[in-house]
Amino acid sequence: MTFNATDHVHMAHALRLAERGAYTTRPNPMVGCVIAHGDEVVGEGFHQRKGGPHAEVFALQDAGKRAVDATAYVTLEPCAHVGSTGPCADALIEAGVARVVAAMRDPFPQVDGKGFERLRAAGVEVAEGLMEAQARALNRAWLSRVERGRPWVRIKLAMSLDGRTALANGESKWISCEASRADVMHWRARAGALLTGSGTVLADDPQLTVRLDGDAGFVPPLRVVLDPGLATIARGRVREGDAPTLYLHAPDVKPPRGFTAARAPVQSTKGELDLEAVLALLAAREINEVQVETGATLSGALLRAGLVDELLLYVAPVLLGDRARPLFQGMAIDDMAQRMRLELVETRRIGDDLRLLLTPIAGS
Amino acid sequence: MTFNATDHVHMAHALRLAERGAYTTRPNPMVGCVIAHGDEVVGEGFHQRKGGPHAEVFALQDAGKRAVDATAYVTLEPCAHVGSTGPCADALIEAGVARVVAAMRDPFPQVDGKGFERLRAAGVEVAEGLMEAQARALNRAWLSRVERGRPWVRIKLAMSLDGRTALANGESKWISCEASRADVMHWRARAGALLTGSGTVLADDPQLTVRLDGDAGFVPPLRVVLDPGLATIARGRVREGDAPTLYLHAPDVKPPRGFTAARAPVQSTKGELDLEAVLALLAAREINEVQVETGATLSGALLRAGLVDELLLYVAPVLLGDRARPLFQGMAIDDMAQRMRLELVETRRIGDDLRLLLTPIAGS
Repeated sequence: MTFNATDHVHMAHALRLAERGAYTTRPNPMVGCVIAHGDEVVGEGFHQRKGGPHAEVFALQDAGKRAVDATAYVTLEPCAHVGSTGPCADALIEAGVARVVAAMRDPFPQVDGKGFERLRAAGVEVAEGLMEAQARALNRAWLSRVERGRPWVRIKLAMSLDGRTALANGESKWISCEASRADVMHWRARAGALLTGSGTVLADDPQLTVRLDGDAGFVPPLRVVLDPGLATIARGRVREGDAPTLYLHAPDVKPPRGFTAARAPVQSTKGELDLEAVLALLAAREINEVQVETGATLSGALLRAGLVDELLLYVAPVLLGDRARPLFQGMAIDDMAQRMRLELVETRRIGDDLRLLLTPIAGS
Repeated sequence: MTFNATDHVHMAHALRLAERGAYTTRPNPMVGCVIAHGDEVVGEGFHQRKGGPHAEVFALQDAGKRAVDATAYVTLEPCAHVGSTGPCADALIEAGVARVVAAMRDPFPQVDGKGFERLRAAGVEVAEGLMEAQARALNRAWLSRVERGRPWVRIKLAMSLDGRTALANGESKWISCEASRADVMHWRARAGALLTGSGTVLADDPQLTVRLDGDAGFVPPLRVVLDPGLATIARGRVREGDAPTLYLHAPDVKPPRGFTAARAPVQSTKGELDLEAVLALLAAREINEVQVETGATLSGALLRAGLVDELLLYVAPVLLGDRARPLFQGMAIDDMAQRMRLELVETRRIGDDLRLLLTPIAGS
C-alpha cells in the first residue's frame, strides 16, 4: 500500500483532531476524521464523548454534499456495528465517499476488519496502515485494555537531580516547580484513573483531582486508593470534589461502620493487594489508562512486577542529599546485569524542571 | 553603544573562531578575531597556543593590505603589553584598521583598558561590549582564575535515572553509554587539570587521559590526585601516558622511598586536604579549569564547600535501585529550605543518555 504526501498531510491532521478528545472520549478510543478532495479539506471531526457521534459522523456533517467522491481519512477503522450510533461504515457509503484511508484496524472484537469489509463490499476503495505507528501510540492506553486486558500504567514522579522524591522526614512539597505541577494536570486529565496507596494518603492527603486552567472540558478521572486494611478513610481529601473515588481492599476486611465510599475487594497476599488483580479489576471497569501518583514503595512494587508502561518524571534542578528518600524502594540490584533499562522517549523543559518520559525495556 | 546586525554576525563568527583554541590555548584565554569591510570578511584568526601569535596577528596576516580602513572584531580587548608577541593594539594601528569592536575588556592587570586607550589615542574608533555575555561564558574558566584567583571547577558524574553512581559493591562500569564516554573526552580536553581522589584511584585505577577520535590537537591536562597520605601511588594508571601527574598530600607526609612523581604538600585538617588550598595551588600553577572525576565523597565535599561552578551530568536511562551509591555523600539536608538549588543550563541527548549541564545557584 503506497500513500502520497497529501495522504500523509490529511492523516496527520486527523490524528491531531483525534487528540482533541484526549480528556473526554474514554473509555472509547480517540478518533479523528478528515474528508478531502485532493488537497482540499471539506470536512473534519473527532470523537468527543462516549455515546456521542463518532468522528466520521461529524466530518460527514461538516462536508455535506461535498462528501460525494471524496476521500475520508480516519485514524481508526470505521465501525460496522450498531452501538450508541449507527455503523460509520454505512454512513460513509451513504454519503458517497469514494475512498477510505484508515491508520489502523480496530482490534475491538465487534469490528476487527468488518468495517473495511462492509466498505469494500459497497465498492468503496479502502487503504489501511497509513501512520499506523502514530495511531497506535495515540491510543496506546485503549489498545492496552482491548489487547492485553489491562490498563496502560504510567507512574508519575517528581524527583530531585539526585533521584530523591522526599526528604528523610517525608517532606516532598514542593520538589517540582509550579509549571510542572500545572503540566501534571494534563496527564491526569488523560487518565481514566489516578491510583495511589494508603501510605501516600496518610502522609500527604492528596486530593488527586484535575485542575486545568481555562475552559478545557474533561471527565474527572476515578480516584483509586489501594488500602488493604481500609485504614485511611479518615483522610478525606481524596473523596472531596466531583471525581468518584474507589477504595480497593483485602477480601477479609470489613468496612468500618458508616463507611459509604465505593469499595471493592481484591485478592491479596500477606496484607498486600495483588497488583495484577488491581489492574484487571480496573480494566473490567473500562479504565484504559492509570496514572500512578504514590511513593517509592508502591511505585517500586509496580516496577518490579513489570506492570509499568511509562514513567513520567519531573526532575527538579535541586539536590536533596543522600539521606533523602529514594525514587523506588525494594529494588534488589546487586550487579550491573540486573539493572533496569529504560528508553528515553521524550525530554522537555517545563519551567525550571526537566520532564522525562521513559518506557521500561522489557526483559531488562 | 549600539551595534548593527553585521556587527553581531562578525562577532559571533569571532567567538566561534576563538573556541577552536579550546583544547590548546591554556593558560591563555581563547580569543578570535575577524577583520571585515561591511559584510565582507577579509581576515580571520584565533589564538592557538601560549607563546604563539595572538588572534589579531593571524587575522591581520590573513587580511594583508585589506586591513586598511577595515573593522576588526575581537572577542577580548587587544593587548597593550609586550608579552611573547608585540602588543596587538600596535599591530592593529599599524595595519590601518579604522574601527575595533571588542566583546569585552581584558581584566588581566597588564591590559585592563590599556589596549583600548592605545587604540583611541591613535585615532582608531573603539566599541566594546558586543556579545559580552557570550565572550565571558566562553572564557569563564580563565576569568575565574584571573578575577577570583581559583580555577573554574566542573564536576563530571555519570549517574542512573535514580541518581546512583555505582552499585553497593562499587561497580560503576559502565553506567553511561559509549557516546557519553566519548563526549567526556572533549570536556577533559578543555580542562587544565583533571582532579580525582585517592578513593577513586584505589577503586577504579583510572588513567584520566584524553582520548579523542580524529586528529584534534590538544594539550594533555595535568592529572591531580588528592592523596593526603600518599597511599595510592601503587596504582599506576594515573601516571601512564604522556600527561603529567601531580600528587597533593598532607604537609607532614613523607613520600615513600623511590617515589619520583611530582607532588606538593597542601594544608590539611584531620587528614583531609583543605580544598580551597588545593584550588589556590592549582590557580598559582595557571590552571584555569579543573574537571573533577571522582566519587560521591569528594564531589559532595566540594559541593558543600561551595567550590563547584558547573555540574556535568550524564544520566543513563537505567535504574540501579535504592541500595546503590548516592550521587553526593555527606549532604545533611533536613528541610526543604536547605535543599541545594541549581540552574539547568543545557540539556542534550548523547546516544541513549541525557547530558545535563548545571550551575549551582549561590546562596541556595
